[in-house]
Amino acid sequence: MSWDYRAPLRDMRFVIEQVLQAPRGWQACPEWQELDAETAGAILQEGARFAREVLLPLNASGDAQGCTRGPSGAVRTPEGFPAAYRAFVEGGWPALPCAPEWGGQGLPLLLDAAVREMLIACNQAWEMYPDLLHGAYETIKGHARPAQQDWCLAKLVSGEWLAAMALTEPQAGSDLGLLSTRAVPDASFEADGALRVTGDKIFISGGDHDLSDNIIHLVLCRLPDAPPGTRGISLALVPKVLPDGQLNTMSCTGLEHKMGIHGSATCAMRYEGAHGWLVGAPHKGLGAMFLMMNSARLHVGLQGLAHLEMAGQNALRYAFERLQMRAAVRPEIRAAMRPEGAKSAADPIALHPAMRHALLKVQALTEAQRVIAYRAAQCIDEGHHHPDAALRERALKLAALLTPVVKAALTHNGFHGTSDALQVFGGYGFVVETGVEQSLRDARIAMIYEGTNEIQAIDLLQRKVLVDGGLALGLLLDDLEAEAQCCEAAPALAPFAQALRAHCQHTRAATAALMERTSTSTSTAADPEAALRVADDYLWGLTHTLYAWAFAASARAATQEPDTPWAQAKTERMRYGVDWLLPMAQVHWHRVHAVALPLPALALPE
Amino acid sequence: MSWDYRAPLRDMRFVIEQVLQAPRGWQACPEWQELDAETAGAILQEGARFAREVLLPLNASGDAQGCTRGPSGAVRTPEGFPAAYRAFVEGGWPALPCAPEWGGQGLPLLLDAAVREMLIACNQAWEMYPDLLHGAYETIKGHARPAQQDWCLAKLVSGEWLAAMALTEPQAGSDLGLLSTRAVPDASFEADGALRVTGDKIFISGGDHDLSDNIIHLVLCRLPDAPPGTRGISLALVPKVLPDGQLNTMSCTGLEHKMGIHGSATCAMRYEGAHGWLVGAPHKGLGAMFLMMNSARLHVGLQGLAHLEMAGQNALRYAFERLQMRAAVRPEIRAAMRPEGAKSAADPIALHPAMRHALLKVQALTEAQRVIAYRAAQCIDEGHHHPDAALRERALKLAALLTPVVKAALTHNGFHGTSDALQVFGGYGFVVETGVEQSLRDARIAMIYEGTNEIQAIDLLQRKVLVDGGLALGLLLDDLEAEAQCCEAAPALAPFAQALRAHCQHTRAATAALMERTSTSTSTAADPEAALRVADDYLWGLTHTLYAWAFAASARAATQEPDTPWAQAKTERMRYGVDWLLPMAQVHWHRVHAVALPLPALALPE
Repeated sequence: MSWDYRAPLRDMRFVIEQVLQAPRGWQACPEWQELDAETAGAILQEGARFAREVLLPLNASGDAQGCTRGPSGAVRTPEGFPAAYRAFVEGGWPALPCAPEWGGQGLPLLLDAAVREMLIACNQAWEMYPDLLHGAYETIKGHARPAQQDWCLAKLVSGEWLAAMALTEPQAGSDLGLLSTRAVPDASFEADGALRVTGDKIFISGGDHDLSDNIIHLVLCRLPDAPPGTRGISLALVPKVLPDGQLNTMSCTGLEHKMGIHGSATCAMRYEGAHGWLVGAPHKGLGAMFLMMNSARLHVGLQGLAHLEMAGQNALRYAFERLQMRAAVRPEIRAAMRPEGAKSAADPIALHPAMRHALLKVQALTEAQRVIAYRAAQCIDEGHHHPDAALRERALKLAALLTPVVKAALTHNGFHGTSDALQVFGGYGFVVETGVEQSLRDARIAMIYEGTNEIQAIDLLQRKVLVDGGLALGLLLDDLEAEAQCCEAAPALAPFAQALRAHCQHTRAATAALMERTSTSTSTAADPEAALRVADDYLWGLTHTLYAWAFAASARAATQEPDTPWAQAKTERMRYGVDWLLPMAQVHWHRVHAVALPLPALALPE
Repeated sequence: MSWDYRAPLRDMRFVIEQVLQAPRGWQACPEWQELDAETAGAILQEGARFAREVLLPLNASGDAQGCTRGPSGAVRTPEGFPAAYRAFVEGGWPALPCAPEWGGQGLPLLLDAAVREMLIACNQAWEMYPDLLHGAYETIKGHARPAQQDWCLAKLVSGEWLAAMALTEPQAGSDLGLLSTRAVPDASFEADGALRVTGDKIFISGGDHDLSDNIIHLVLCRLPDAPPGTRGISLALVPKVLPDGQLNTMSCTGLEHKMGIHGSATCAMRYEGAHGWLVGAPHKGLGAMFLMMNSARLHVGLQGLAHLEMAGQNALRYAFERLQMRAAVRPEIRAAMRPEGAKSAADPIALHPAMRHALLKVQALTEAQRVIAYRAAQCIDEGHHHPDAALRERALKLAALLTPVVKAALTHNGFHGTSDALQVFGGYGFVVETGVEQSLRDARIAMIYEGTNEIQAIDLLQRKVLVDGGLALGLLLDDLEAEAQCCEAAPALAPFAQALRAHCQHTRAATAALMERTSTSTSTAADPEAALRVADDYLWGLTHTLYAWAFAASARAATQEPDTPWAQAKTERMRYGVDWLLPMAQVHWHRVHAVALPLPALALPE
């Protein structure tokens, strides 16, 4: 019973190569014509080694020590974190998906996602420091002036410097329109966009730390002439260390004491007339920042996936070690799981039906969600790198649709599935030294930050599905039904095809009913909350449709492998998902169709 | 946003007096003819005061400090815990449900349950020390020799001494048949049952501490001639301090570092030829201990209820304080929740549909589960105190059926519902100082100890439902359908009656199908795991039937109150449960009917 990580390289490569057929897509993109499955596999293998050998040993100790502030207020990360970061930079990992023109390796986000999954599984708190690099790089590359790009972009790409995203203020969390940090144009503003930033931010991950010499903050703020609300928000680049080597007038004023991710410095930051530069147009900061947030949302989804994998594989190993009670099982189960016969009074708990349910659920969800998350990354890759503009546009629409599902569903299951895995350990699961309780504590935050899961559901339904009359959704369902059609050609895959067809149909029917309900201005005036009442259920309904797709696509890919025990077990797990997990969708669609039911008002008790 | 507790006295009294009509039942029992609703209400009010004023201030500090061991190895509880315990003893609280012949107050377990709910809500870790008193009292009163009863029973009833339950060993958790602690008869064994106990136990809550002068351990062990497995387990009473004042040869060898309940000492205990006395017959210890475990299971269910109430009421208050974004809501919702009109750009988040869902779900579950848990306590009261033997037997059957549901469902929702409440706080929910993250950490253990929730499900389905061909279940459903009939008489209650009828029918149908499946020895030999495959779903299906009953019974009781805003809001919350929560039962019954579907074998990756 020792907490360990065996990177799921075989499943990762199966998803990338067989299910998503990504190497074929790389051939179509000029930048990636040299990239093949073997090269990609070698990168994953190296990433796995780094995660397990360098990061995993720091996970429990980082949790126990947490971050501290030195006498000057500067933040110290747990022992070993800075050295691990140096090794990360030396290995060239920060630059994986960045463009070669800035010193990056220009690899697909899909590969970056798989590497990131492994880093997070071994140490989420540590991984959060370099997590924002790519988003900051995208934002600065897309919106900052050339002078700032020249100054900092190469250093961010190499990882010599790190980045932080400063959005939240005490009164402005989900509602960024309420933020009040001020930015006053400096004398040279017209020429170079120079600003002075003043205000207090909270919940700034990696706002200060000792991993890098400089930290580039991207700060949401208001210019003096800003309109109120979200239409008056600007984005400023505010470095910890200025180009002339002076420390900027900004400081970490406190570290949050948190339920988990103790090794990640969650800073309260104060900017006191800090020097900065406008990024993008005045009052258009939110748009520029959302570029960063969308990739951040995929990463947060990967946090959920990583915890589920980690907790699930450790629970599985424990379930084969731990002997408790003779299991009443079908003879063929006993033959498969205890071929050596019963040598003791008790069986491994892995035989017991309740434990098989718990573990199969975690495995089926992990594997299906890996397909979905990697598909989202693949869409972003296609959206930016495919030579065909129409295909790029289509891929970006799919990515936009998948992002809130990946963020919300994977983080929900990251927490709840880790709790299921904890249960397998019995009383030992509650004990710190076992390791799984830290995963559970760490996993909880991902349901909240980068837009709460409730906000993801609203984003999905209102801004991704209903906004264009279901056009983008139609593209997604077309892809899914194409998979169903492929499965229909093989009799063994009939249950998968059937389930996928049915779930696509339920999705279409529920979406049409919701559009009907929200289509007229009269109905919207009387009931403006209709879509909001069922947004969560809609997200979960669609998530199950995507599960149905992932189960089918994985099962079909497995039939194209040699008929090994691995391929058989994969098919059985996917079938488990169809039989035991998909029925949950009924409830979600039932509630979507029940949209007219009242959702009462609340009152405080007298 | 300060973590606080307003005892739900109004709802408690509504459940006890209006829904369960308990005072009428007390009239029928000779011991309780003097007890009326007013007296009971006064006891609850005092309990609420004690919980909030004495225990709540020690909750966060107890979590931060945890338990420690002094130089001699003796366990020290967090600051303030011993003084709070002295106040508890002085208030006469330990003796609430114990018989007056031993110095107890002889009050119904139902009142004890309500008081306990409040103590746990304010400080679960502290409450666990006196939690086992009543179970130890029952076990010793029922099975120990008169000499031991005379020696320790009055001191346990007064709370001067405390008790611990020593079951688990490293290799014997859910499977007590594997335990190996030895008991060797002493010279005087034949005369007084004296034994020497040797072995190691783990996970012993309150195995050592500084709250009381003595701690009476009830230890599961094996006599030299014990048959293997569960039929060879005996129960020994092993005190920390012997009748002659000497310390017994037993010690705490370690404290677990845990995810939560840091203030509760979870001890590894070593017994080294410790003096003890046999309780009950040789090899019949498990039966005697189960007397203690059944009341412990009700208490653990109350832990779930208490956390849900605590987290829910704090989240509700926060949701009315926190302003974020204008809410798109029906005009009547705005009129009800913001009658003063909008004075700021943002609304309290309590208006937002996603938050109304989260809070209404927590409230509806809290209130329904309070009805169910208190009903279980009421059945135990009737089972022991009603003058009519047939009614006593019936009540005990109902209590046995309700106990696993209360334990499993309430602890599951205690954890998951507290997570829902945490979500309402956004990022603040993850911060230690807010308070809710401690509730979430504390709540997790209740799904594991006193028999994991998976074991409760098996207990329910195999040992409570199938074992007698559904007779006990039939008694429960008769009661539920009687409630449906009452509701059918009032047109306003039609949706409640309809839902309750339907859920009873689904329960009968699913039970009949399972009995059919498991009734022949041929089918059982081929598929001995059939019932086990769907035990969890069966428990959740039945839980929803009980919710349907609790919603209906509460709504009907509310119609018999004056037509106040309180009664209207209660009806709306119960209706919310019918509309939005009960549909979940579909999935559980669907899976029960799908019992023939395969549940694959598992394998470790190569």
